[in-house]
Amino acid sequence: MCLALLDAEGEVSGIHLAKAILERYAKLSAGEKLTFFDFLNEALEVDLLALEAAVQTYAQSRSTNDYRDLSVAAEPRRQELLRRLNQPTGATRALVQMRTDLLSMLRDAPALSRIDLDFQHLLRSWFNRGFLVLRRINWDTPASILEKIVEYEAVHAIESWNDLRRRLYPTDRRCFAYFHPVMPDEPLIFVEVALTLDIPDSIQKVLADDRAVLEAQDTNVAVFYSISNCQTGLKGISFGNLLIKQVVDELRQELPQLSTFVTLSPIPRLMPWLEQQDDEASRRLLHGTATQEEIQAVASDYLLNAKTARGDPFDPVARFHLGNGAQIHAVHPAADISENGLRQSGGAMVNYHYDLALIERNHERFVQDGEISTAPSFREANQKSNARKQKGRSS
Amino acid sequence: MCLALLDAEGEVSGIHLAKAILERYAKLSAGEKLTFFDFLNEALEVDLLALEAAVQTYAQSRSTNDYRDLSVAAEPRRQELLRRLNQPTGATRALVQMRTDLLSMLRDAPALSRIDLDFQHLLRSWFNRGFLVLRRINWDTPASILEKIVEYEAVHAIESWNDLRRRLYPTDRRCFAYFHPVMPDEPLIFVEVALTLDIPDSIQKVLADDRAVLEAQDTNVAVFYSISNCQTGLKGISFGNLLIKQVVDELRQELPQLSTFVTLSPIPRLMPWLEQQDDEASRRLLHGTATQEEIQAVASDYLLNAKTARGDPFDPVARFHLGNGAQIHAVHPAADISENGLRQSGGAMVNYHYDLALIERNHERFVQDGEISTAPSFREANQKSNARKQKGRSS
Amino acid sequence: MCLALLDAEGEVSGIHLAKAILERYAKLSAGEKLTFFDFLNEALEVDLLALEAAVQTYAQSRSTNDYRDLSVAAEPRRQELLRRLNQPTGATRALVQMRTDLLSMLRDAPALSRIDLDFQHLLRSWFNRGFLVLRRINWDTPASILEKIVEYEAVHAIESWNDLRRRLYPTDRRCFAYFHPVMPDEPLIFVEVALTLDIPDSIQKVLADDRAVLEAQDTNVAVFYSISNCQTGLKGISFGNLLIKQVVDELRQELPQLSTFVTLSPIPRLMPWLEQQDDEASRRLLHGTATQEEIQAVASDYLLNAKTARGDPFDPVARFHLGNGAQIHAVHPAADISENGLRQSGGAMVNYHYDLALIERNHERFVQDGEISTAPSFREANQKSNARKQKGRSS
Amino acid sequence: MCLALLDAEGEVSGIHLAKAILERYAKLSAGEKLTFFDFLNEALEVDLLALEAAVQTYAQSRSTNDYRDLSVAAEPRRQELLRRLNQPTGATRALVQMRTDLLSMLRDAPALSRIDLDFQHLLRSWFNRGFLVLRRINWDTPASILEKIVEYEAVHAIESWNDLRRRLYPTDRRCFAYFHPVMPDEPLIFVEVALTLDIPDSIQKVLADDRAVLEAQDTNVAVFYSISNCQTGLKGISFGNLLIKQVVDELRQELPQLSTFVTLSPIPRLMPWLEQQDDEASRRLLHGTATQEEIQAVASDYLLNAKTARGDPFDPVARFHLGNGAQIHAVHPAADISENGLRQSGGAMVNYHYDLALIERNHERFVQDGEISTAPSFREANQKSNARKQKGRSS
Repeated sequence: MCLALLDAEGEVSGIHLAKAILERYAKLSAGEKLTFFDFLNEALEVDLLALEAAVQTYAQSRSTNDYRDLSVAAEPRRQELLRRLNQPTGATRALVQMRTDLLSMLRDAPALSRIDLDFQHLLRSWFNRGFLVLRRINWDTPASILEKIVEYEAVHAIESWNDLRRRLYPTDRRCFAYFHPVMPDEPLIFVEVALTLDIPDSIQKVLADDRAVLEAQDTNVAVFYSISNCQTGLKGISFGNLLIKQVVDELRQELPQLSTFVTLSPIPRLMPWLEQQDDEASRRLLHGTATQEEIQAVASDYLLNAKTARGDPFDPVARFHLGNGAQIHAVHPAADISENGLRQSGGAMVNYHYDLALIERNHERFVQDGEISTAPSFREANQKSNARKQKGRSS
Repeated sequence: MCLALLDAEGEVSGIHLAKAILERYAKLSAGEKLTFFDFLNEALEVDLLALEAAVQTYAQSRSTNDYRDLSVAAEPRRQELLRRLNQPTGATRALVQMRTDLLSMLRDAPALSRIDLDFQHLLRSWFNRGFLVLRRINWDTPASILEKIVEYEAVHAIESWNDLRRRLYPTDRRCFAYFHPVMPDEPLIFVEVALTLDIPDSIQKVLADDRAVLEAQDTNVAVFYSISNCQTGLKGISFGNLLIKQVVDELRQELPQLSTFVTLSPIPRLMPWLEQQDDEASRRLLHGTATQEEIQAVASDYLLNAKTARGDPFDPVARFHLGNGAQIHAVHPAADISENGLRQSGGAMVNYHYDLALIERNHERFVQDGEISTAPSFREANQKSNARKQKGRSS
Repeated sequence: MCLALLDAEGEVSGIHLAKAILERYAKLSAGEKLTFFDFLNEALEVDLLALEAAVQTYAQSRSTNDYRDLSVAAEPRRQELLRRLNQPTGATRALVQMRTDLLSMLRDAPALSRIDLDFQHLLRSWFNRGFLVLRRINWDTPASILEKIVEYEAVHAIESWNDLRRRLYPTDRRCFAYFHPVMPDEPLIFVEVALTLDIPDSIQKVLADDRAVLEAQDTNVAVFYSISNCQTGLKGISFGNLLIKQVVDELRQELPQLSTFVTLSPIPRLMPWLEQQDDEASRRLLHGTATQEEIQAVASDYLLNAKTARGDPFDPVARFHLGNGAQIHAVHPAADISENGLRQSGGAMVNYHYDLALIERNHERFVQDGEISTAPSFREANQKSNARKQKGRSS
Repeated sequence: MCLALLDAEGEVSGIHLAKAILERYAKLSAGEKLTFFDFLNEALEVDLLALEAAVQTYAQSRSTNDYRDLSVAAEPRRQELLRRLNQPTGATRALVQMRTDLLSMLRDAPALSRIDLDFQHLLRSWFNRGFLVLRRINWDTPASILEKIVEYEAVHAIESWNDLRRRLYPTDRRCFAYFHPVMPDEPLIFVEVALTLDIPDSIQKVLADDRAVLEAQDTNVAVFYSISNCQTGLKGISFGNLLIKQVVDELRQELPQLSTFVTLSPIPRLMPWLEQQDDEASRRLLHGTATQEEIQAVASDYLLNAKTARGDPFDPVARFHLGNGAQIHAVHPAADISENGLRQSGGAMVNYHYDLALIERNHERFVQDGEISTAPSFREANQKSNARKQKGRSS
């Protein structure tokens, strides 16, 4: 059927065929899906001999026709197949699901990662930023979308509709999501925002049931306390930085008095990192016997110095915000004392500060020199702590 | 700036850059635009040596990393540039306009047609059928869109708002257009439909001011009497066959009693073709001395037998509808006696019949064997006319 | 301020005044509200002497001017006051709330019921049926409205959002509500519908978590299993019969195969009625020692024979449906075994059948002769039961 | 049928009956309509004897039941009939049309004006200000509504769609209309606004084809240059003052820099008034031999001093704006040189100034003392002109 689709001349019959393939695919077993991907990987691969010939022909003629042939030869046929599969109504969602399947198979079948590159190439084009639509999520949003917000929340789980209401209904709360026009009931990514008077030092305070609700126009600080990607099948197609930037713009337009844009972020890989270390402080933190002061010091040190093999920050959330041009503002111990928070980071959280005047500069320095921007107060706190540590060690 | 955009790491700054480039482009003179396209064509061309090397590396390793490098090398950098330019809000429209500019330069600078292939490649992906939205155009449509319908109508010009109202307001008229979500106020293509009792034999009757309006549910025939592409910059990205198919579906759902779907189409290239012929009938038609019977016979003959060098029907409208699986139903002389109608085809028009039971078969025969499907009555009329002609000659 | 509003000439300043009065009212204590109502009742009463004079003047002159004066004199000034209070945006909702307050005071201050007649008169005009908007409530409805559905459900309480989802999301469930354009987020009345294969004999089956969901087009029966009025302040302004009629129309249009429209209704006043009776069966039912057969017999007898002083059915739900032209189809014991169901009716429920062919006739007979329409099967079951009862007694 | 409707108990059957009556009414001839209105006027009149009895009964008992009876007796049965007629969908529009018919008959059948009082009473309740919806009219408005704007424009006729576009599309133009939710495609009243740098002195300049379009945020003055009531059947139910007030609020919110709100208004009854005068200046103006200076002086004098029998300003437009709290800012000769403008006022127009700080005060003085507020510059100009006139006379 796939080959028939690639051969189809008529577009209308092509759409029928595409629909039939997607329906058939949806019913395949995992094993059959693997066979399907193997077919894409092998049978619809680039024809290297043909490509080489096309390169040479075009190198000599430089003609438009030969350029067209080169373009065709340079692309694996599976890309054209996926494009044709994308024609029926609802197909995009099905293809995102197809990639979800593919991703889950990559570990056992790493050779399929070539297909994934093609998927990424096409999805990046279809989910072009210019096509994304920012929508406010609030208590007037349809329940069918709200239940997806509950489902997709990846940072601080939403326990109940009452919990959801507390995050969406009060005048000092905001939530925004990106949607794609062909998947209008599927959020791609969303951010939850608290409007506050001060930069918060714990998620417990932000989400407290009995906190005093503020009038939005009386607040100073917008806190991005949860950012969740929703579609596994769009992994690697990043929307996050754009979302933050556009939400900052929206908020500034609605509430010009807001002066500070800051996150309250988890440090999700702190504990795994410490497990690989071999020093006293790490051990105390792992065993839950560290003081709050120690936790803060270790977490700060981790954010500044823990690196991947490629030299990037080890922590994925740090990598994301620092890469966007934010700077480390402060690290707080006992900031997320949920089970999950304790397991990830001993309860520590961090504020990344989006200082509009410094974003460009921070971003550039980070990209070029790997320099991590930090607030003066953070540097000072960190130095003191280091000094104490030195002193402790030397004593 | 374009090179900077290609080098940009941060997506937010990339969008600013893209916006700036598009704004700068919009103000360029024609000469400067040519220079810009030359730059795309030469400086952002595929690097053939690098591509050849990537082919060989991948041929040996078959590794994912080398496949990625091959994919990158196989694509001219201008494609990535255009993708990045497409990120700001409103950019798609600007790029469609950019291609409009490009198309207008191709005649004088044919080398730029390589860029055009890249444009087509990307536009086909962005204007994927799955992304198109069908909307009914009627008297409740915003004036800002209606004035574009007036502007873009390419077959039977709309003279005034009253003329437009006559085509949209009555209960026996329909109009549908495709839109793309990021250009919600720009129709891509639209079709005007008259609901009638019989297959019409002239556009004058269809558009008559004083005709009797029918109740939609009392009609039998849906006549597609005008199909107009709206965006020059989307030339070659065809939406027409899909539009017809989907409008047929819409109409059948709304009005299940409709039994016949037919066009009343111009024969736009008849006169140019006759100018290249050298027989008596052609001359008489060109000189306006042909009888209605002769015009009908010559037009029928033209539709059946006039071919391009590649063997396709010479007439573009015939090519379109026959390729979609329609069949020639009847040719009518004096069917469009407007100045334009007389100049194009001596006033002749043709009905193409979309017989739902035969579309697939017609389409397949046309694609495979170039066979032109015709209605029995048409064949009969044509044979008689040929017989007369033969007789006329032999006498 | 109220007198000032009645005297106000300018409409703009009148609206300011009205707004101020409504805001002031909203902050009054219960005692102050009583004083306000006393003022309406006494100071803004009809001037009987003036009215009598106006009647006589007009009786003689029959002039338009005197008719105008008569109209003015015939109306208590509080009606004009309420009309003027209704001018600001949001005022209608405030006045509905004001009547809610008033209703709660009527028991202790029955003289205020004159004001209530004026309220009813105006609300009936403002909530004219022609102004009501029927909207489908489903899982795409905003959460802000859904939480009101949860709050206002008066028959079978909605326990949680999951419970709500079970009533709205499945393909064989429907919910419709009336809204008024000036209170777009306040349902006035809503009905929950289950689409089933057979007429159901218990609410447990209808609401079971693990029931098999049907495709809507495969169902035969539409069961109205819950109808809730939402606005206390609109008591006596009935929307229910119209709602049922319009929902039947909607469902027949969407699902033409539906053949039966029936309720599954509570019998809310059965137990209170039995408490006033003095026979063995009643006592057994009250003490929970009756058999299911006895419960069914007693409930049937109650529905047919228990009357108010005015001769209407004693049961308000019966009064409503029989008045609309429905007929009693069947009585089911153990049909609502919730605490509430047992307390109201020993667990019995009843189907009222909206037989489209008989509604007019049933309605007329009920209105004219108080005749209660019943299904043949119900009559038969009832006769058997009576026969047994007679036999029991005589033995 | 009307009596049947009044007797109908069931609301659903009542709606059918109401629908049938309205459909029957719509097909009546003028003579039959007159008969229908006579029936309303005579047969459904207040029963004076019953009313007198009800007054006396209630005067003695002061009981709620007797109050209810009084309320019923005090209202002519035709009011209840009209309320019941208003129940079907679309009925309100039909009743507005019914009143249009009635108004056209009042001259020949003045006795029917009693019915008209009842119509007014009900329409005022149904078209309560709280129910009105303000909508912006612009080039994105559906054509079906725009063609009504063209039709209903009562001050400066809209010649063509191009003319309409010039009034709606440019960034320095605004148009707003009130709608009622049950007649969503029928504007009730609309105002056209020009945003300018200065207070304009002629309509020619405001509507000039070739004027320079301004950016809205660069303007200072909002000019209400045309206000049109749309529904004859709503005569006497005034929306104008509220519309102006709300549009001022809208504009101030969108464009806070706007400092001046002013009209450019016709003086529609100047010439008819002058025809009743007997002085030299009036004669010269009527004969078209007056100078521009004279026209200005006579028009100013007319606005200040011409009164109705009741002492109100003779000019209806003056009455409207002065009653709303505006003041006379300036009178301009040669300000509307269209045929209509010359016929009404010799070409003169006037600016009424809505000075937000003075509206309340102006309104109050006008209502209480009939005082006409004027701008200092207007008073000065007028005094000079009077002085010249005096001098002219005394010389």
